[in-house]
Amino acid sequence: MHANDKLTIRALSEIDNLKIHGRTAAQKAPLTLFWTGSALEFNAKGSELWVEIEADYEQYEPWISILINSAQVSRQMVTAGRHWICVFRGMGADTVKNVRIVKDVQAVSGDPGHSLRVHAVKFDGEFLPVEEKPFKIEFIGDSITSGEGSIGAVAEADWIPMWFSALDNYTFKTAAALNADYRVLSQSGWGVLTSWDNNPRFNLPDYYEQVCGLLNGDKNESLGAKEAHDFSSWQPDAVVVNLGTNDNGAFHNPAWTDESTGRTRKQRLNEDGSFNEEDLGAFEAAVRGFLAKLRKNNPRAHIVWAYGMLGHSMMPAIYRAVDAYVKASGDRKVSVFQLPNMTDETVGARAHPGPLAHERTARELSGYLKSILS
Amino acid sequence: MHANDKLTIRALSEIDNLKIHGRTAAQKAPLTLFWTGSALEFNAKGSELWVEIEADYEQYEPWISILINSAQVSRQMVTAGRHWICVFRGMGADTVKNVRIVKDVQAVSGDPGHSLRVHAVKFDGEFLPVEEKPFKIEFIGDSITSGEGSIGAVAEADWIPMWFSALDNYTFKTAAALNADYRVLSQSGWGVLTSWDNNPRFNLPDYYEQVCGLLNGDKNESLGAKEAHDFSSWQPDAVVVNLGTNDNGAFHNPAWTDESTGRTRKQRLNEDGSFNEEDLGAFEAAVRGFLAKLRKNNPRAHIVWAYGMLGHSMMPAIYRAVDAYVKASGDRKVSVFQLPNMTDETVGARAHPGPLAHERTARELSGYLKSILS
Amino acid sequence: MHANDKLTIRALSEIDNLKIHGRTAAQKAPLTLFWTGSALEFNAKGSELWVEIEADYEQYEPWISILINSAQVSRQMVTAGRHWICVFRGMGADTVKNVRIVKDVQAVSGDPGHSLRVHAVKFDGEFLPVEEKPFKIEFIGDSITSGEGSIGAVAEADWIPMWFSALDNYTFKTAAALNADYRVLSQSGWGVLTSWDNNPRFNLPDYYEQVCGLLNGDKNESLGAKEAHDFSSWQPDAVVVNLGTNDNGAFHNPAWTDESTGRTRKQRLNEDGSFNEEDLGAFEAAVRGFLAKLRKNNPRAHIVWAYGMLGHSMMPAIYRAVDAYVKASGDRKVSVFQLPNMTDETVGARAHPGPLAHERTARELSGYLKSILS
Amino acid sequence: MHANDKLTIRALSEIDNLKIHGRTAAQKAPLTLFWTGSALEFNAKGSELWVEIEADYEQYEPWISILINSAQVSRQMVTAGRHWICVFRGMGADTVKNVRIVKDVQAVSGDPGHSLRVHAVKFDGEFLPVEEKPFKIEFIGDSITSGEGSIGAVAEADWIPMWFSALDNYTFKTAAALNADYRVLSQSGWGVLTSWDNNPRFNLPDYYEQVCGLLNGDKNESLGAKEAHDFSSWQPDAVVVNLGTNDNGAFHNPAWTDESTGRTRKQRLNEDGSFNEEDLGAFEAAVRGFLAKLRKNNPRAHIVWAYGMLGHSMMPAIYRAVDAYVKASGDRKVSVFQLPNMTDETVGARAHPGPLAHERTARELSGYLKSILS
Repeated sequence: MHANDKLTIRALSEIDNLKIHGRTAAQKAPLTLFWTGSALEFNAKGSELWVEIEADYEQYEPWISILINSAQVSRQMVTAGRHWICVFRGMGADTVKNVRIVKDVQAVSGDPGHSLRVHAVKFDGEFLPVEEKPFKIEFIGDSITSGEGSIGAVAEADWIPMWFSALDNYTFKTAAALNADYRVLSQSGWGVLTSWDNNPRFNLPDYYEQVCGLLNGDKNESLGAKEAHDFSSWQPDAVVVNLGTNDNGAFHNPAWTDESTGRTRKQRLNEDGSFNEEDLGAFEAAVRGFLAKLRKNNPRAHIVWAYGMLGHSMMPAIYRAVDAYVKASGDRKVSVFQLPNMTDETVGARAHPGPLAHERTARELSGYLKSILS
Repeated sequence: MHANDKLTIRALSEIDNLKIHGRTAAQKAPLTLFWTGSALEFNAKGSELWVEIEADYEQYEPWISILINSAQVSRQMVTAGRHWICVFRGMGADTVKNVRIVKDVQAVSGDPGHSLRVHAVKFDGEFLPVEEKPFKIEFIGDSITSGEGSIGAVAEADWIPMWFSALDNYTFKTAAALNADYRVLSQSGWGVLTSWDNNPRFNLPDYYEQVCGLLNGDKNESLGAKEAHDFSSWQPDAVVVNLGTNDNGAFHNPAWTDESTGRTRKQRLNEDGSFNEEDLGAFEAAVRGFLAKLRKNNPRAHIVWAYGMLGHSMMPAIYRAVDAYVKASGDRKVSVFQLPNMTDETVGARAHPGPLAHERTARELSGYLKSILS
Repeated sequence: MHANDKLTIRALSEIDNLKIHGRTAAQKAPLTLFWTGSALEFNAKGSELWVEIEADYEQYEPWISILINSAQVSRQMVTAGRHWICVFRGMGADTVKNVRIVKDVQAVSGDPGHSLRVHAVKFDGEFLPVEEKPFKIEFIGDSITSGEGSIGAVAEADWIPMWFSALDNYTFKTAAALNADYRVLSQSGWGVLTSWDNNPRFNLPDYYEQVCGLLNGDKNESLGAKEAHDFSSWQPDAVVVNLGTNDNGAFHNPAWTDESTGRTRKQRLNEDGSFNEEDLGAFEAAVRGFLAKLRKNNPRAHIVWAYGMLGHSMMPAIYRAVDAYVKASGDRKVSVFQLPNMTDETVGARAHPGPLAHERTARELSGYLKSILS
Repeated sequence: MHANDKLTIRALSEIDNLKIHGRTAAQKAPLTLFWTGSALEFNAKGSELWVEIEADYEQYEPWISILINSAQVSRQMVTAGRHWICVFRGMGADTVKNVRIVKDVQAVSGDPGHSLRVHAVKFDGEFLPVEEKPFKIEFIGDSITSGEGSIGAVAEADWIPMWFSALDNYTFKTAAALNADYRVLSQSGWGVLTSWDNNPRFNLPDYYEQVCGLLNGDKNESLGAKEAHDFSSWQPDAVVVNLGTNDNGAFHNPAWTDESTGRTRKQRLNEDGSFNEEDLGAFEAAVRGFLAKLRKNNPRAHIVWAYGMLGHSMMPAIYRAVDAYVKASGDRKVSVFQLPNMTDETVGARAHPGPLAHERTARELSGYLKSILS
């Protein structure tokens, strides 16, 4: 191999023209990418670029994807340890390459060891400034928003990182259609009030104000996951909340037992199959509460509750809750939008929306967001 | 990380139920994958699989793609050296995964150092037999068949391995539509008679009877590239030849000079822009000669000259040559098929056919092959 | 011309195996087709078929379309007077042709002269029974449901029957996807409470229990338009209500003046552009009232309020109203479904949804209806 | 009905700004439309337009389609006799409507009575000039070019005019894509040398120099069908010949017997299924002869032999013939283009190409024509 002796190593923290996508902690040397869709972006003028990435996990490994000039060229598992990964080589030294290195799997609350850190780059050129996009969008959701099942064969059933995609994902595609920067906060199985199996701790709102508070363990704490997020640093034009699918699941799944106290928790159905009114009320209260929290932290954002890719049973309750919130608060920049349901034609792996389902959702959702952002 | 202590290392040469795609040399420990689309295929029953791959190059590095149950899940550059690459982990131990690890870039005649070798696997399960497909197809071509430009942004201009794809490729898609095994022999810039720049040595027919004879250098020789290919080991039902595009280019590009002798070589145009008859005749003779060589080695295959994705100026000459060959030989299993031309809508990187162009070609070509193979 | 001397004329009323689509009056000799999508259906075994149709109007003429074996073969204006229209000729006498002759324009409340009547057929064969489809669907709507603008160039601006289509219409396509019989009640510009220009008399609910009560004039009365509809004769499995678009328009258009009393009527906006609460309440009351009327007359139908092809501003109010109705009545077979919004790509004539918009709506809506009907 | 008393009748021959598509005879009062795709075109500024059309036939009736501003709005059978057909009514009097009234079925050589004549219009406005398009294309073909089967259900088997379409047709769509005026000469079942059933009289070349010489009977003669066509009146930029499909059929069908002499005629296959060389030579001679005739009459046109929608068995012979013609004549503006084959997905009625097959052909062919016309 011809060695490229012009390559020099720089710590990520020393690079001025680096654009970081996704919430980060104070500690940036190394830089931890927590959420799916979190990314580094460079405008790199040079012929060869490497990035030093460190992965760790007990069970669920991270994956990354690489885009050059907006085209995906690579997707790979990052196994445990510290690796120099070559982003490109042999390219014309005088052209500027827009590069994005994207975390392609969600934050993993169930694996306290899971982490992805970027230490340094090795490059033979210079980094030019990366422009801000005209819009900023924040997406909050569950497995759908994590792109679970949007890659892989329909027959796949294992819950593993390989079947998650940040790019074959309505979030990425919606942002691209709007020419927007975006961030994602998402967790498979979680809801507004409880998880699909009635665990009341597995809800997104409780952790919304931390950098990535749903992560567990000392290591994640030391990486800054539990830090308070600085909302002033990135104010979105729109917040899209795609939650409710697992809250619906809770009504149809067994009770959750708190192992420390023995107490159980269950969203109940009536005998005739309808939702128990009290429990549905608790869900609606959670929606209202989350809206208030979102508004507090994002004073000028349009908030869109976007729901419906895996059925839309909770839609009446969501509308009721939004209605009640709007009435009580006078806040008028909140709306509800129904997403197109997955079909037999658009199903992906693990009975989740496949790439075509994400494509259709992005088409409808970006049309709607265009109408409210313009 | 939880180490998986059930993993055991086996040399590739010790695995019975391994299916190898693409021509190989006698030496299989390690196994060299020469051509684009060359691949290992396993039916792997187990939870975690790694493969040990060694890459080398002076300039142009190899890339691989991984398919699990026919869905592409990974694509990555393989940098110089010997690497353990994790194919999957954390999967259900009792289900069988069909795995293909595919060389995603062509054999590189211009880089004597370029090679991709597979040494071993690390696995915690057992390999089950992989079935033969009902059909076998061999594709012979140039950059189009190498998938040059079928990945990457339209603006890309560098000639680098990153922009080559074996999967966003009409060869892969045609074979999939026909449920066929397939092999590819291809080289960017090369033709039947000469390369795009009139080099008479850069023609596919001269190397057809070797394993991968267009490679250069001692190392490739030691890997077996120059060995005679054993045609009896794999007899295709169809041979698809997609050549002529660079032979056309030769008429429109400057002469080639043999540096050792100073002699020049040029396919000439007449003053009115038409092809010089003598030079066109040389092209036709090369087509006829290649057909004879193909027939000699593939006695029962349908031979299809499939041409036209980047213009079809050579089509009359191809028809003439095929006609003359058929008349002289009495061989009736030879035909010509025009492929759909690339358009502004379907262009990819480097002014080459993009994924949509390959998709359309696969649709037309597989329809045609179905009609002659059934 | 070779005359076909086997043709015999039969009054429509004498044909046993005639299937009539759409609400009809008691008087069936001749038979009046009132609504868009209303149709005659035959299974005709014979070589030549004519139908005698009589059209009348002061201003807006009727159009018909003809389908043979579910393929549209003809679409034509029917000018004033009584015409023998040839449906087919020269066909094999022994095959059975499924024939539908469809009214291709809505009932026209603004033209008391508009009517389409069928008197007789001329045929040389026999009519065989037409099977019932497994499902029955009733659609109630406005211009969208009338297919206004789903045929014709985008530039068209005249309000004329030529731009209305019963077939390039989500109603027809949804029913086809579900293999359902269907009926349509629709009127351009009308709403649940008022028309787009605040006329409180132009609402669908007031006329729901008559055959086609929104028609005016003595002639329509004599044709039976004002008769009470016999709901027992045709009980739908689903009622799809696509209303609200014009009720939203009323908020944004000038007041309507009752010319007889001088009184005005206006759905008001607040100064900040939001809906006046009292007026929005009146809309919601109208929705609730219509649901009660629909349920009274269709005891076993799923009622789906399907809305959103031209914006979805009324959605919160619709959800509120449905919610209130469900709570008050205990009726659980009522739901709301958001339709995909028209885009620049899918717009048709007169700034209304074009064929592609109807196609997308049919895809989403039929998916939803499948899930509740099965 | 409100009568429009501003309507005045004008003979077609008195209208200056009428654009006629398709070959016509000297006699233009009334005007006979002979070929499929032949049409009247107006730029009509007024509110109401009627056209007086006279149809005749022994067996096969004519059909027409109407386009307003390039959108098809009507398609109807024209039964025997003279009819006033309303093109539009009730439109804004001050806007200009581009109107095309198109013969939607081929000239019918098998029915000496078949004719379609236009006598007059009734209008309340003025006709403005219709611009010439930048290109002119002539299409010559068989049933494919006549649009046989491009409308109607796949199951249809009767040979009747209803299943022919001039608009769901690659000719119309190719011309539209190129913004070209176009003409069609076509006849189902006919070839370059013989018809599908070996009749040597049923070939297009013999009648190419007459207005519509393939028609029979005194009446057609009196209408001018046998007149010499004045080629100077309309010189195409491209002539597209889509013939060969029936010439191939002749090899696979029984001999034709000349009833007057008892002599038979048959394109023969060899015992091994290959084409008899002598008979194939006769086909090639016919191709060469037709090219010479086309060139004589169209000195500056690109001639494209475009073939392949229903198999491409004759392609080698076509290439050979074109090659021989080019060599002998030095004529360089002749080429061959392979059209995409019909598939199970794109089949229409009567086992002929359906609308999607015509769409794909138009896409490929217009791309090719663009490259040679620009």
